[in-house]
Amino acid sequence: MGGAPLVTLLTDFGIRDTYVAEMKAAMLAVEPTIHFVDITHEVTPGDVAGARYFLERIWWRFPEKTVHLVVVDPGVGTERRAIAISHAGHGFVAPDNGVLGAVLDGADAVELTIPEDASPTFHGRDVFAPAAARLAAGTPLTALGTPCVDVVRPVVSRVRHDDDVVIGHVLHVDQFGNLVTDLPVPDRTDIVLHVGGRDVTPIRRTFGDVAFGELVAYVGSAGTIEVAVRDGSAARMLGLGRGAEVRVMPREP
Amino acid sequence: MGGAPLVTLLTDFGIRDTYVAEMKAAMLAVEPTIHFVDITHEVTPGDVAGARYFLERIWWRFPEKTVHLVVVDPGVGTERRAIAISHAGHGFVAPDNGVLGAVLDGADAVELTIPEDASPTFHGRDVFAPAAARLAAGTPLTALGTPCVDVVRPVVSRVRHDDDVVIGHVLHVDQFGNLVTDLPVPDRTDIVLHVGGRDVTPIRRTFGDVAFGELVAYVGSAGTIEVAVRDGSAARMLGLGRGAEVRVMPREP
Amino acid sequence: MGGAPLVTLLTDFGIRDTYVAEMKAAMLAVEPTIHFVDITHEVTPGDVAGARYFLERIWWRFPEKTVHLVVVDPGVGTERRAIAISHAGHGFVAPDNGVLGAVLDGADAVELTIPEDASPTFHGRDVFAPAAARLAAGTPLTALGTPCVDVVRPVVSRVRHDDDVVIGHVLHVDQFGNLVTDLPVPDRTDIVLHVGGRDVTPIRRTFGDVAFGELVAYVGSAGTIEVAVRDGSAARMLGLGRGAEVRVMPREP
Repeated sequence: MGGAPLVTLLTDFGIRDTYVAEMKAAMLAVEPTIHFVDITHEVTPGDVAGARYFLERIWWRFPEKTVHLVVVDPGVGTERRAIAISHAGHGFVAPDNGVLGAVLDGADAVELTIPEDASPTFHGRDVFAPAAARLAAGTPLTALGTPCVDVVRPVVSRVRHDDDVVIGHVLHVDQFGNLVTDLPVPDRTDIVLHVGGRDVTPIRRTFGDVAFGELVAYVGSAGTIEVAVRDGSAARMLGLGRGAEVRVMPREP
Repeated sequence: MGGAPLVTLLTDFGIRDTYVAEMKAAMLAVEPTIHFVDITHEVTPGDVAGARYFLERIWWRFPEKTVHLVVVDPGVGTERRAIAISHAGHGFVAPDNGVLGAVLDGADAVELTIPEDASPTFHGRDVFAPAAARLAAGTPLTALGTPCVDVVRPVVSRVRHDDDVVIGHVLHVDQFGNLVTDLPVPDRTDIVLHVGGRDVTPIRRTFGDVAFGELVAYVGSAGTIEVAVRDGSAARMLGLGRGAEVRVMPREP
Repeated sequence: MGGAPLVTLLTDFGIRDTYVAEMKAAMLAVEPTIHFVDITHEVTPGDVAGARYFLERIWWRFPEKTVHLVVVDPGVGTERRAIAISHAGHGFVAPDNGVLGAVLDGADAVELTIPEDASPTFHGRDVFAPAAARLAAGTPLTALGTPCVDVVRPVVSRVRHDDDVVIGHVLHVDQFGNLVTDLPVPDRTDIVLHVGGRDVTPIRRTFGDVAFGELVAYVGSAGTIEVAVRDGSAARMLGLGRGAEVRVMPREP
């Protein structure tokens, strides 16, 4: 037997106000059997790229038919569109601002109709939440709006190759100060990582392979290279944040 | 088909301690099929008026039969009573300190019996939670205690009229620094809003109608006038908080 | 009728990252009908003793068959084992670092197999969560791993007696600044509590028994002596934290 309709929530609303609960109430009013999983509501306000990273990291771990409601929407009240997308058996509802960048390939998309009485400042509750609830309850995507082919695609900085050097960036600094990069697992072991003016080598299996307080690079739980300080904060030690450049190159023999 | 019994939680317990989960455990011990929606646990400790504002804003958005458990209870351990209320098909369980002010009109109320073994410092877990669970499970209100007619009614500052001027107050400062007031939607458009020594005019539809960093007044998602700074904090720009006076008056021709 | 399979979560992951939701996704992938209750994710990073205190305080309040997933795991990536335990009809899944100290007596324990493809830095998602989901879904404990008899037992400071004096410690400082101690309910009333250079007497029933801003000792909601300041913070007033010594002794006649 399967579970109840499942909706995940990813926003920058924080947890002090009633905004998240107002969205849940709006969804339960449409479909009272929905279950919710909060991904996080602590995205930095307006940080579309940060939300995109979180969504990319997690959506595919949920069961098929899960609907992902993403409301990081600095453009609420402007002319940006509201969209719903179907991709790989999952549903996605969000503003059309690039936050769904990771799930656009091969996706069906519709532009949501904005109800007359929707609050112009809270589409999360009055536009996105009802659409997410209907999608979770089994309403076909095409019944939620009109087809939309020119969805906004974000400009994403890709990993570059410069001869033997692979150049990537810090995508995310987590709660522990670990630096998550976009550098893929290297195909050789005799390499050195260049980050914040420091050389880290070799790539280890895990934190436990270095002493307390020492820098360590390893393949993180998102499948890319991370940089950490054992029982400390790499972000603080190196003074780095999202966007910082990280390079991998062959180790001098 | 309807959903499971639904209980919302609104407290000042924060999310670091186990107090919220202890209340949920106490409810599941009474009725294991309950679903929970957390409204917020970040009410400023002891801020009864703040919790009343949150509750007023949201309770009616949930499906009928929802039970709302509100524990902002600076008087725990004093002689204040514990009450349960039925209003418009919803249930409410809270200390009798005015926090239910928004749902008292036409409500049936009972005073809850305090069990002998209830912890005198945690009625949330030992008195309110079990009552909320029984109410959510279908126990009639009258079976939870003795009728109570003199429920505490809070003194609420109302919007005043002084000739052409409407005088209201900031009810809430949200996570984004937006000032939510109690001023109703004006019935004319040629007005000016007086707030923190500044004049704001006209009333706009949404943030997007002004430039970045500019003050804007609009009808907010709670249906009253709000003051914001586009991509900024009105609370910080104006140095205002809850209780600050806000006036609407005709614009000089 | 009983409820759905129930899993509680207790971690030091915080609520900014996607880590908690990744664990929930991993559990729903195994068993889509699971319900979750978050105990807290705000354990101080790596504070095994703090998590043990929280777990001890709450696990037994949940219905039988509840599974408690505890991931405070400073040793992730080292050789510490992953375990699952059955105790008093509840299930527990955690690293073998003493965090389950409160539920070891008479428990059956197994060492979990670490899957080949588990991320070495995120056993919470790849080892503990799937095991918790299987246990919640009814898989027998013995099917989750190999029997384990030498589970790590934490060294816990016990209450000592020195003639008429009972010597205990602060176990936890809660959100309100209340000091929760391990001192049991005294069997006499003419006693004085010695804490942070102050004498507090007598043991009161609750906060309301003293004036605003005054120190008060009482039997707290965990069943042991607590020290608080009415509408203030005892931790701040006394400058004390976890581990601070607290003494109870007869009052001089």
